[in-house]
Amino acid sequence: MKKMKAIDVLDNKDLIWSETEKPRILDNEVLIKITATAVNRADVVQKNGFYPPPPGASNILGLECSGVIEEIGKNVKKRKIGENVCALLSGGGYAQYASCPEEQAVPVPEGISISEAASLPEVFATCWLNLFHEANMKEGDTVLLHAGASGIGTSAIQLCNLFNCKSFITAGTLEKISYCIKLGADNGSLRHERPFEDIKKWAPNGVDIILDPVGGEYFEDNLNVLSIEGRLLLIGLMGGTKSEINLGLVLMKRQRIIGSTIRARSPSVKGKVMNDLYEKVWPHFKSKKIRPIIHKTMNIEQANQAHEIMEKNQNIGKIVLKIS
Amino acid sequence: MKKMKAIDVLDNKDLIWSETEKPRILDNEVLIKITATAVNRADVVQKNGFYPPPPGASNILGLECSGVIEEIGKNVKKRKIGENVCALLSGGGYAQYASCPEEQAVPVPEGISISEAASLPEVFATCWLNLFHEANMKEGDTVLLHAGASGIGTSAIQLCNLFNCKSFITAGTLEKISYCIKLGADNGSLRHERPFEDIKKWAPNGVDIILDPVGGEYFEDNLNVLSIEGRLLLIGLMGGTKSEINLGLVLMKRQRIIGSTIRARSPSVKGKVMNDLYEKVWPHFKSKKIRPIIHKTMNIEQANQAHEIMEKNQNIGKIVLKIS
Repeated sequence: MKKMKAIDVLDNKDLIWSETEKPRILDNEVLIKITATAVNRADVVQKNGFYPPPPGASNILGLECSGVIEEIGKNVKKRKIGENVCALLSGGGYAQYASCPEEQAVPVPEGISISEAASLPEVFATCWLNLFHEANMKEGDTVLLHAGASGIGTSAIQLCNLFNCKSFITAGTLEKISYCIKLGADNGSLRHERPFEDIKKWAPNGVDIILDPVGGEYFEDNLNVLSIEGRLLLIGLMGGTKSEINLGLVLMKRQRIIGSTIRARSPSVKGKVMNDLYEKVWPHFKSKKIRPIIHKTMNIEQANQAHEIMEKNQNIGKIVLKIS
Repeated sequence: MKKMKAIDVLDNKDLIWSETEKPRILDNEVLIKITATAVNRADVVQKNGFYPPPPGASNILGLECSGVIEEIGKNVKKRKIGENVCALLSGGGYAQYASCPEEQAVPVPEGISISEAASLPEVFATCWLNLFHEANMKEGDTVLLHAGASGIGTSAIQLCNLFNCKSFITAGTLEKISYCIKLGADNGSLRHERPFEDIKKWAPNGVDIILDPVGGEYFEDNLNVLSIEGRLLLIGLMGGTKSEINLGLVLMKRQRIIGSTIRARSPSVKGKVMNDLYEKVWPHFKSKKIRPIIHKTMNIEQANQAHEIMEKNQNIGKIVLKIS
């Protein structure tokens, strides 16, 4: 059995870089020699035991990576050995090697480095899946982005700009709000200071789309500021799982509440999203209309410190972990 | 000003057949000399003051009719004077004449009478809009239909059969359940006797689609029996507007909750639905694969008795009101 290094989670939740088995690939998969991975909130949740990997996925943390294709399965058609790719993973990114179905790996965008590309798959795929596939976002839509300075928030702000939609963000500090507005958000509000009053002023007829990682704590306010035929995309539960619901509002305003996670989706759904990104979003990195938003690049051996930054909500955008 | 007869709602909620103004048409509208209309639960709610007509709609009760086109606006292209049609209305069906945008009127299906056709637009359009446009129903889906013996329920059972989907219904009496099963429902359960336990047995992995006119009282149970990527279509609130919600379930199962009413939709949405029905459903009346389910045909002067039947949940299928 071939060996590699990967992050192991100790009982005390410490992350250590240690030896394990190198993954083997199936006929439809590629093996990526990883250049970098990036931290997602889901990694922190998984580390703490609350987000088990879906059946068949690696137990190793890490939902995305970038690197070089070292091996391809015999049914692989689009990817080639030696290609620089970034990939959406079901797990296994915090390691020297990861395998995934070929559809989940696409070429690194022109104009950015391989290492920077590690910051893209999870957040851009989540935003694309939700804003376009789930919520059918159209030019002119108004979009409310909670946690606007997060990896997902900063990607969503840029996608809204690119496709001529206006975004309002909430965030925990004035610094984060001003960063988001510079990045292209139309306006923003502090999450601890009645943001929903500001949102109502910003969009008196309601917002068309809400991308929400908060859940319970914001649920009723979200529905109150959602427009007729508005879509609430529930992508996380940082603010709890329980709420009341006024079904009268949902019915009369014809609202949609959509629970959405990308990790457990089929390779074909993930592949469709990655291909859309490759065709419709990646070209804009070269033209500098969008850019990877990276808070900090660290080494994989510093995974503990990287998680701490996210746990304390100190990051604006992504934390990249380089793997040598 | 030309006159006609129509149903007026007195302060004591009595419905009387009395004189009023005949509607005039806009350039994109047709004027229908009405042969029959049919009773919907929304009429009862509107009569009691809880469902005001949308802006621009007639104040007269009645969301559907059948009859003969007597006049067309100068921009009307598809409909012709003298044509026998049935139409989805925003209001005004309990009358001798009604006007509507031409898209909302389609020819009476071959194989049934003009009067029978009055029973079709509202329930078939509601089912089509919800099952296909909103919930993207596909062959093999499992569908839970609450109030299975209602006009909407009996239409939905037949549409499920026609498109190879299996339905489970709930209803208030054994007679209604056995009627629904004869009509094509796969199974059913009494609504007062823990129907959700039976539903779980019927679909151990959850039902793909729920068409629900009940709301609050069933909401949590509905989400509990809804499958991964299942769609809950909320089309009424007979069981109240308030509920708790477990967002953890909605998120992890990637469920969709969709509030949906047809009345306030644009003529273009209604037109698309009516055209779909005309092309994909109407031909099956001629081949007898489906049929109008009519509990009773009465005269418009008996509107009070007709409402009473619906208020007491005594009907299986529709109540048609003939207008002479």
